[in-house]
Amino acid sequence: MTDRRVLVTGGSGFIGQHAVQRLATLGWDVHWTARNPSPSMDLPGTGHNLDLMDQGAALKLLRELRPSHLLQFAWETKLGEFWESARNLDWVGASLHLSKCFAECGGRRFIGAGTCAEYQWDETPCDEQSTPLVPATFYGTCKNAARAILQAYFRNMGVEFAWGRIFWAYGPGEKCDRFVPSILRPLLAGKPARCRQPLQRRDLMHVADVGEAFSQVLLSDLQGAVNICSGTQQRLGEVAEFMADHLGRRDLLQLADTPEPARPLRLAGSNRRLLETGYHAPPAWRTRMAAFIDSAARSPAKSD
Amino acid sequence: MTDRRVLVTGGSGFIGQHAVQRLATLGWDVHWTARNPSPSMDLPGTGHNLDLMDQGAALKLLRELRPSHLLQFAWETKLGEFWESARNLDWVGASLHLSKCFAECGGRRFIGAGTCAEYQWDETPCDEQSTPLVPATFYGTCKNAARAILQAYFRNMGVEFAWGRIFWAYGPGEKCDRFVPSILRPLLAGKPARCRQPLQRRDLMHVADVGEAFSQVLLSDLQGAVNICSGTQQRLGEVAEFMADHLGRRDLLQLADTPEPARPLRLAGSNRRLLETGYHAPPAWRTRMAAFIDSAARSPAKSD
Repeated sequence: MTDRRVLVTGGSGFIGQHAVQRLATLGWDVHWTARNPSPSMDLPGTGHNLDLMDQGAALKLLRELRPSHLLQFAWETKLGEFWESARNLDWVGASLHLSKCFAECGGRRFIGAGTCAEYQWDETPCDEQSTPLVPATFYGTCKNAARAILQAYFRNMGVEFAWGRIFWAYGPGEKCDRFVPSILRPLLAGKPARCRQPLQRRDLMHVADVGEAFSQVLLSDLQGAVNICSGTQQRLGEVAEFMADHLGRRDLLQLADTPEPARPLRLAGSNRRLLETGYHAPPAWRTRMAAFIDSAARSPAKSD
Repeated sequence: MTDRRVLVTGGSGFIGQHAVQRLATLGWDVHWTARNPSPSMDLPGTGHNLDLMDQGAALKLLRELRPSHLLQFAWETKLGEFWESARNLDWVGASLHLSKCFAECGGRRFIGAGTCAEYQWDETPCDEQSTPLVPATFYGTCKNAARAILQAYFRNMGVEFAWGRIFWAYGPGEKCDRFVPSILRPLLAGKPARCRQPLQRRDLMHVADVGEAFSQVLLSDLQGAVNICSGTQQRLGEVAEFMADHLGRRDLLQLADTPEPARPLRLAGSNRRLLETGYHAPPAWRTRMAAFIDSAARSPAKSD
């Protein structure tokens, strides 16, 4: 086993690819898995075709690679369905099995991808130590339950374990029904854009910063849950206006005057623990968003 | 699918066999599984050889039987190891998979076997609504996490779900290192017996009553967690003295004067919810224990 060999599952995904790129840049021996790795995918490291539901195949790959570190991003992400999808249950099983293979093959540090949906959404900023873990969704329930099991399991096995709770990531490759592309794509096409939740506040973070944050957690010795967020919160109406203004198309933007009431008005987190890993807070959101909009304007396909 | 077909996993086990017997008596079409069903096992209903870790075999059996009800007792129980065994992780995966097969095959009501080890052990009687779920062991962590996932999953699937949290069961077939046999076996053999935790208080329940309680939960429409306990608590020194006195061998009993401090001094539960199912509280513990001692004295092998 080499000391710095990391396996990134879901390594070609929305977040995973940024962690793969970051760790390769840092000189790690990076291996990543995807269900259908595209041969054209321009990712460093070694890609492996792996369906984590195939437990035999997962065990075989872990035995071959014997990674010292593992970043588990692979999970159900089908937009509009993943919150309550029965597939979440399969992903718990697959993650437990993967973890056991990793520990039994001599793995030393495991980083899992959690979610702000594990927390009780009570409008106050989510804190790893004090916010109750009362998920409102099946997705959040499964992630939190997997975390509880893995934390105890890895403690028993003497394997380090951290769990990054992702808040609101945006960036290249984001699915088009999500907030940022739902505004940006029509604006870039010169069509009307509608912000349906202008009063909601969210902790937005560029996906490259999310990938870097996970990489920093992996490099650190932090254990347990850690929020992967910017520590700030933005009103979505203000973000939509910024996007429209940046493109000089405020005329195309409509703000709904009746925000949808089902989800919390505020959903943000403390990034105190994340900063303890040595992670540097990302640039102010306007700077980051402006650069993303410019990049998306140059190659619109990347904002799909 | 018949309306009253139940599959009892772990049906030949310490608790499962009593539920099998009870439900058969009540006229149910009872099927049970065991990893190695003994051909000599005197159980009603239909036994099936099934290793629940074999997901394909589990799915096949569920598709064949299409039970309306399921009682999931099968789990890791190796004495002295199960509290922290990595096998608990496998059993979570197997239970999730079994549950999914059950729901997808049209199952209507699922009863899982939980444990008092899901609760924070803070010396007060455990209550389903108010006691924090802060397990001190890996076993308790896995059971509680499985419960959280299954409760949300079955809600989404429109399948009824209840979860019986077992306290301290004793009776025929109990493993010989556990409290009751550790006192009773030597006394029956005319040898010295030592009670190492005379000051601890536990909610003892005869295993036939545990099986009956689970059967009653299955017959009821109760959903969510329910304590499977007597609602009383006994000092273990007093129980040991009762056993010795009942056999007229108080001379053989030693009570340790330094109780082990690692586990809680009191561990008992409220049985209010269980009684709401129509379950009748068992006889007073002395009556139940006297009958068990007499039975064990007649056929000592049964107390193994």
